[in-house]
Amino acid sequence: MSLAKKIESLCKRAREAAPFVAKLPTGTKNKILLETADALVARQAEIIKENTKDLKAASAKKLSPAMVDRLTLNEKRIAEMAQGLREVAALPDPVGETVKAWTRPNGLEVRRVRIPLGVIGMVYESRPNVTIDAAGLCLKSGNAIVLRGGSEALHSNVLLGKIIRDALKKNGANPDAVQVVDTPDREAMKFLVKQSRYVDLMIPRGGGALMEWMEEHSKIPVIKHDKGVCHVYVDESADFDAAERIALNGKVQRPSACNALETLLVNEKAAKDFLPRAIRRLQDAGVEVRGDDKVRKLASGVKKATEKDWSTEYLDLILAVKTVPDLEAAIRHIQKYGSLHTETIVTRDEARAREFLNRLDSSVVLWNASTRFNDGGQLGLGAEIGISTTKLHAFGPMGLEELTTTKFVVKGSGQIRE
Amino acid sequence: MSLAKKIESLCKRAREAAPFVAKLPTGTKNKILLETADALVARQAEIIKENTKDLKAASAKKLSPAMVDRLTLNEKRIAEMAQGLREVAALPDPVGETVKAWTRPNGLEVRRVRIPLGVIGMVYESRPNVTIDAAGLCLKSGNAIVLRGGSEALHSNVLLGKIIRDALKKNGANPDAVQVVDTPDREAMKFLVKQSRYVDLMIPRGGGALMEWMEEHSKIPVIKHDKGVCHVYVDESADFDAAERIALNGKVQRPSACNALETLLVNEKAAKDFLPRAIRRLQDAGVEVRGDDKVRKLASGVKKATEKDWSTEYLDLILAVKTVPDLEAAIRHIQKYGSLHTETIVTRDEARAREFLNRLDSSVVLWNASTRFNDGGQLGLGAEIGISTTKLHAFGPMGLEELTTTKFVVKGSGQIRE
Repeated sequence: MSLAKKIESLCKRAREAAPFVAKLPTGTKNKILLETADALVARQAEIIKENTKDLKAASAKKLSPAMVDRLTLNEKRIAEMAQGLREVAALPDPVGETVKAWTRPNGLEVRRVRIPLGVIGMVYESRPNVTIDAAGLCLKSGNAIVLRGGSEALHSNVLLGKIIRDALKKNGANPDAVQVVDTPDREAMKFLVKQSRYVDLMIPRGGGALMEWMEEHSKIPVIKHDKGVCHVYVDESADFDAAERIALNGKVQRPSACNALETLLVNEKAAKDFLPRAIRRLQDAGVEVRGDDKVRKLASGVKKATEKDWSTEYLDLILAVKTVPDLEAAIRHIQKYGSLHTETIVTRDEARAREFLNRLDSSVVLWNASTRFNDGGQLGLGAEIGISTTKLHAFGPMGLEELTTTKFVVKGSGQIRE
Repeated sequence: MSLAKKIESLCKRAREAAPFVAKLPTGTKNKILLETADALVARQAEIIKENTKDLKAASAKKLSPAMVDRLTLNEKRIAEMAQGLREVAALPDPVGETVKAWTRPNGLEVRRVRIPLGVIGMVYESRPNVTIDAAGLCLKSGNAIVLRGGSEALHSNVLLGKIIRDALKKNGANPDAVQVVDTPDREAMKFLVKQSRYVDLMIPRGGGALMEWMEEHSKIPVIKHDKGVCHVYVDESADFDAAERIALNGKVQRPSACNALETLLVNEKAAKDFLPRAIRRLQDAGVEVRGDDKVRKLASGVKKATEKDWSTEYLDLILAVKTVPDLEAAIRHIQKYGSLHTETIVTRDEARAREFLNRLDSSVVLWNASTRFNDGGQLGLGAEIGISTTKLHAFGPMGLEELTTTKFVVKGSGQIRE
């Protein structure tokens, strides 16, 4: 079979399985998730064996240590995947939920009811745990899923997919609801994004090049999980201790995350008191600070920031720092250089906080809290398939509800339209 | 300026105006809508003059009478456009609405707040009233809009756009929030759908060829307003009077609408009692009936339906009629040939109704009511920009709320992530 035919057939099978997975009772779905969790642990030797094949190939290809780390599955990580599935099993089932109900003057009873999207195509890079996380969320929300992980994780992903399919089969559900693209051939992506007849939504998670490629080639609607150039603005009335804690947490707690802090904006009136100590603490934590001239006058060891720094997502222990004359300048800076991801204001002044929260339409805007809270788990969605930077459908963290849409269900008694 | 540059610049201006229109107070938006309504009536001679230019060109091009009718603006239609704007002004403003609010265990107060999508690109065919309807809904929901109507309506659309822009200007709002693509050049569309930097969403309304073209070429997310192959299923326990009324209303009240009935499915056990009289009434109303062999045995003047009829959206006084052995066969027929638009079951049996409403994931599913109720106004959304056949973001009629997205607004007291 040609690769084109193979990809088409795989998507078609997912489509055919979709109506069945959409109507699975909650109990059956949870049983499948829990049994998959148990199977992951029971079959961990097998998983580690397949993962070792991927790691050997990675070492032959001289992948970076960071990539190798992301690719690695061990007992601890397998236990975490299993735990993730158990948590998703414990979440409420969004399918069938009545979101809103009302009655029309002519007696029609109207309800908006949650239904699954159908078939979701997931494209991601090296981390094989995404295979389990994404499949778990899609199944719980009644969707079929086509998984296209990084070619470097192929052996791991194929086995993980098989483990879920086994659990589906065991419970009398159609295993075709979970499909893993089992070829490293990069051409497969080209065929995948043309399957608009069978796939309802593509979710790419990865770097800017992948996002641009998807935008250019996909015939299927795309919800991007793109970069986060996240800001913290420290107002003149800020609690400087809180501001320092929030900046430090945003930058160093997990610098590789898309909700990590990238640019710190400081009101000029606050700069003299706030910046020297804050920068020292950041530097002590291993952060390279790049600043404008005013920042460099106030602290030592600060490199000169260039125009490019203001729009860079470092994903690393590097922080751009800029002074601004007022709130208005901070807002305009974020509108110009930001990526609509996550922005925090630190202030005691409620009017200025409201202005910031109202004017900036990033997916998550915060007042006196770390940017690292832009996360489905942290914000209370239970779990997340990622953080959407597309305004359409779901903007910000996407949990189970965001993997559904609604239909209108109307009950009448013979009404016709006049 | 090249056409490519011209379209880019027009989209860029809409983008720049978007943050301002997003934050306009409700009162100002309503004032702009009401003043536009007044101006439409006050300037109707001017509108009719521009429309006459379009009509002359249409007559030279020998457009069909139906197209000429859709293109025509007269006093009555201008009054209807004005009335539409007044109704939108009277609707609640969705922008800034808190959709949901909760508090996390760590004290973070989280709200999901409605915000506009940004810039909406609207592509439509001959009817110039869409220019006013779409612009009104987009402005009320805080969005900027780029309008690309049919080239045959260009003179009318340019003037209508100007009238809204005048009202924006008069109220101190940025008139660039409303852009009309003022060239009949078909190449303009190609450039328009590449402006993903400036435009957040494309809404095409039109035929299948336009939908396919958009899917193929757009780099911007698309919400399609595609065809409706709508079904009514008459169960054996149906109230046959209601079933007849619902079938007749679905087919003849406005056959050119996407929610008009196209295929009538009848349970075999109901066929003998129901079909002869129902078909006679449909034929008396001028409907051409095409049926399977069983249908043709029960009624005279019925043409033989072919496989193609089951998936055809006639948009005309033609109806396909088929007998089915049971509910399951009806559901499978709709899943195979339908377009996920609108389906009705007529029955007195609640269990069968629930099965139908639950199993079919069309955008609107009805029990004992006409398919013609799949409409924003009829279902209580106030007004609609169209009926989405894309499951993403909005499925079914799209009103003001569906032209917004949500952001997360988080209030903390110095929280950081552990």
